[in-house]
Amino acid sequence: MTSLTTPTPSTMSSGTPSASPPVPPTSSGETASVAAARARTAGLEAEIARDPGRFRVLTGDRPTGALHLGHLLGTLDNRVRLQRAGVEVVLVVADYQVITDRDDAGDLPGTVREVVLDYLAAGIDPDRSTVFTHSAVPALNQLLLPFLSLVTVAELERNPTVKAEAADAARRQGRGMSGLLFTYPVHQAADILFCHGNLVPVGQDQLPHLEATRTVARRFNQRFAAARPYFPEPEALLTSAPVVLGNDGAKMSKSRGNALELRATDDDTAAFVRLAKTDSQRHITFEPEARPEVANLLTLGAHFAGTTPGLLAEQVGAAGAGRLKQVVTEALVEGLRPLRARRRELAADGPAVVADVLARGNARANAVADRTLADVRALLGTVYA
Amino acid sequence: MTSLTTPTPSTMSSGTPSASPPVPPTSSGETASVAAARARTAGLEAEIARDPGRFRVLTGDRPTGALHLGHLLGTLDNRVRLQRAGVEVVLVVADYQVITDRDDAGDLPGTVREVVLDYLAAGIDPDRSTVFTHSAVPALNQLLLPFLSLVTVAELERNPTVKAEAADAARRQGRGMSGLLFTYPVHQAADILFCHGNLVPVGQDQLPHLEATRTVARRFNQRFAAARPYFPEPEALLTSAPVVLGNDGAKMSKSRGNALELRATDDDTAAFVRLAKTDSQRHITFEPEARPEVANLLTLGAHFAGTTPGLLAEQVGAAGAGRLKQVVTEALVEGLRPLRARRRELAADGPAVVADVLARGNARANAVADRTLADVRALLGTVYA
Repeated sequence: MTSLTTPTPSTMSSGTPSASPPVPPTSSGETASVAAARARTAGLEAEIARDPGRFRVLTGDRPTGALHLGHLLGTLDNRVRLQRAGVEVVLVVADYQVITDRDDAGDLPGTVREVVLDYLAAGIDPDRSTVFTHSAVPALNQLLLPFLSLVTVAELERNPTVKAEAADAARRQGRGMSGLLFTYPVHQAADILFCHGNLVPVGQDQLPHLEATRTVARRFNQRFAAARPYFPEPEALLTSAPVVLGNDGAKMSKSRGNALELRATDDDTAAFVRLAKTDSQRHITFEPEARPEVANLLTLGAHFAGTTPGLLAEQVGAAGAGRLKQVVTEALVEGLRPLRARRRELAADGPAVVADVLARGNARANAVADRTLADVRALLGTVYA
Repeated sequence: MTSLTTPTPSTMSSGTPSASPPVPPTSSGETASVAAARARTAGLEAEIARDPGRFRVLTGDRPTGALHLGHLLGTLDNRVRLQRAGVEVVLVVADYQVITDRDDAGDLPGTVREVVLDYLAAGIDPDRSTVFTHSAVPALNQLLLPFLSLVTVAELERNPTVKAEAADAARRQGRGMSGLLFTYPVHQAADILFCHGNLVPVGQDQLPHLEATRTVARRFNQRFAAARPYFPEPEALLTSAPVVLGNDGAKMSKSRGNALELRATDDDTAAFVRLAKTDSQRHITFEPEARPEVANLLTLGAHFAGTTPGLLAEQVGAAGAGRLKQVVTEALVEGLRPLRARRRELAADGPAVVADVLARGNARANAVADRTLADVRALLGTVYA
């Protein structure tokens, strides 16, 4: 599950990056579970290369706005890579999650349209991948009921996402946590399991979120499908790109206003880089810990120029931040040109493009969800006619 | 909502009676809200008599076993009365509620069949009323998601049903309350509101349960349908028959094994009465407070003999408990004869009878729920294609 389908209060970033493999081991401070997930991810990537057809990836986004550079490097590129590798990719536009912590979801149709255009422009192919909206698949949503019977209130209270939200709700005056947010881990389980998703790309901070889904799958199998497990226990495909920063030096996030949207113009792109925070050292070096803002520009520039941040730093060197920004702007403008051209073409074709993608994706998701619900009803013994 | 759709731990009775009007005022200790509901109920009954077509009743049962005498006097008779008065009656067989507090729901298809046979035998007419199973209506269940966004966790914790269940879960070793049970008040809101139910028969102890549904309807209207309220705030039709006791003197309940099932034979009926607790006073009098077991037999006997408990007491008088039991047995056997004959006929026709009722009811409920969900999606702005 990407960070976007993990609900985050609007004051937090919604674009935790978690980019393409191979995944380098982190230097230190890694927990045993992260280390295990990292090792398992290496094995999973090998299996994907060997037999992509046995995997179904479920991931998605909360439609809170057009996607930005953090999404592209963090998740979108990885999804397109998996799709091209032959893995079935299912993307949920998690529209109900927008009403979990906002009174007014704003222009949802407009926002959903932007997100789908970003998917298509980035390379998601609706002939190969499924793009659907959560609210359009009743049978998926019905799974919430049997799944809710498999978790206790105490477990929901201990869930890391729920705990973070409870703390946030307590901070905000007069706003209690809604029942929808409280049950969020179970919705996520329904999102993943309705299509028998067995692989979920996550950043390492999101590993605990997948546990609730694994627990629901395991308990369902134990209680209702003891003879033959029905749901897979989905595995984490750990991705760990560096966090993409906005031009204020904080994590890139639409709500912070520090993001470069994928749909932005070349002029917007230049302005984004021009305004980007750097530091007072003239000589450019790649030191992510000590010089995060400069490192971020180097990472972005290198990504689109097809080089490494270290090599780019050497190339700019004493020419300083001005030259760095010039290089990064060119790399971004050039690197995003094909995506942006595709996006403009698609947008010019009018609303039918997105409507068609969603109509097909929703139909496919409904067919899958209807089958799963029929199976679940049979396993629960709630078929009477 | 009848007590049966209010989840009760299996150690509690599931058949709170709440019978036909006119509703006599209780003697004392009545709270202001009960008094108000009682006054409003009198008005509602007058409106039902005048214009039954403007009401839609939603009520139902948890399928935990065949129905008994407590159900008949408490709720079934009242439903049939409302149906005959021309009110639209929608009955939900709340099968998901059976998995809220039981690991193993047992033979649900068998149990559901018995409940539906009891409905039909008691006079529910599937041409006029809708009988459906909760798990067969995905669009109804999807309403849970937007509705969950309208209540806070703190409100769910304060809900009387949830509080009672939480206490019960704490008593039972090692069993935490499930997420399904915790969100129960919101399921109930979906059950009632999916068909725009505007009238819910309740006993006075169940008045608080309806408040959650009224809150959900009100907030939905405020937030998403400010221009024109979309959901009705359903009203309580307060019913207050005396509690029907089992033959051990406790409230009649399948799980206590003290119940007379509607489907029982004449011999079973005689045995039920023969084993019924009475007291040591020979002379029969109707004193519900002082002599509850005798009063209970008088109530049952009078109900089926078409008289009043007081008159029946005078009639038996000095002849004592033996004579009382004889009279009550005859009244029950005779009074239940038509219902039981109908039930045997229906059962003899094989499983197709119930399957057909549910197929038609589920189709009708799905059509209604699909329309409501489409409206809700439009009001929430989650229509994209």
